[in-house]
Amino acid sequence: MKALIISADKFEDTELLVPYYRLKEAAIDVEVASLSRGTIKGKHGYEVVVDKTLDDINPDDYEILVLPGGAAPALVRKEPKALDIARSFFARNKPVAAICHGPQILISAGLLKGRHATCYKSVVDELKEAGALYEDMDVVVDANLVTSRQPSDLPAFMRETMKQLKL
Amino acid sequence: MKALIISADKFEDTELLVPYYRLKEAAIDVEVASLSRGTIKGKHGYEVVVDKTLDDINPDDYEILVLPGGAAPALVRKEPKALDIARSFFARNKPVAAICHGPQILISAGLLKGRHATCYKSVVDELKEAGALYEDMDVVVDANLVTSRQPSDLPAFMRETMKQLKL
Repeated sequence: MKALIISADKFEDTELLVPYYRLKEAAIDVEVASLSRGTIKGKHGYEVVVDKTLDDINPDDYEILVLPGGAAPALVRKEPKALDIARSFFARNKPVAAICHGPQILISAGLLKGRHATCYKSVVDELKEAGALYEDMDVVVDANLVTSRQPSDLPAFMRETMKQLKL
Repeated sequence: MKALIISADKFEDTELLVPYYRLKEAAIDVEVASLSRGTIKGKHGYEVVVDKTLDDINPDDYEILVLPGGAAPALVRKEPKALDIARSFFARNKPVAAICHGPQILISAGLLKGRHATCYKSVVDELKEAGALYEDMDVVVDANLVTSRQPSDLPAFMRETMKQLKL
C-alpha cells in the first residue's frame, strides 16, 4: 500500500512528520511530492526529501492522500496538477486527510461543497465560503474525507486516518 | 493506561512529539516530566508543557516510560530521581522505550549490563562500556526494553513500543 503526501516549503513540521512516521509504522510506503525535486523545509527547520514532483505523480498509484498544513498549502493550491490529484482521489472515493491549512488545497480544487470538514481557525471563513459544513472539532470524518484543525489534533487525525485504510 | 515521558530542554522534537501523539492516538494518557515546571523547548523550537516535576512522579502510576533523545538526556541523567524512576520500571518489568541519546539515562542508572540495545552513533562507545550488547539496527527489543538510534527509526521504534502495551 502506498501513501502520498503533498507539501512544500514552510510546512508545519509535525503535521507532515507525524503522519509520515505513523504510516511507515504500519508498513505503508510513503512518498512526498512537491513543486520541485530536492528537499522541502518545515517552519521548524526539518528537511524532508521530495520523492517526486507533482508532474510525476499518477494518483492511481496511491491509496491515500495526506495534506499537511503550515504555509505550504498556500503554494500547493496554486498548482493545477495538485488540484487534479486531489480531484482524482475524491472521484475514486479514496481517503484524503487534510489538517490545518491543508484543506485550502481542497477548497481550490472545488471539492468541499456540502462536505463536513474542519480546518485551522484562520481558514474557517474561506472553508465556509467554499460551501463546506464547518465543525469546530479535533477531527471531522465525512466519507473519504478526514480533516483536523491543528497539531494538537494529530492523535484524533491519525486515529481516523488509519481507520480509513482498514488495515 | 498512562505513559510517562521524561525529558528536558533541547529534546529532539520528533523523538518526543511522535511518541507523544502516537500514544494519545491509542487513547493512552501521556504525562511529561522534567526537572522543573513550565515548558521545555526542543532543538527545533517546539514547546511542550511539563505536567509534573521528577520529584512528583510515582512510577507505579504509569505503564510505560519513554525517553526521547537530543541534548535533554545529558541533563536528565544527572537527576537521581530520574534514575530511580527508570530502575523502578525495570524492576517491575514494565516497558521502557529509549531513542537516540535517551539510553544515556539507562546507562547512568546502571540498567544496560548484558542487555541488547542500540542508540545514537555518538553514544555507542559508552553504551558498550556500560556492558550493553550493541546492535546497529533501527530497533532492538530485549524483553521490556525497546531502543532505537535516531528519528528515521521512529516507525520501527513506535511499532515495537506499541506492541509492548498489548493493546
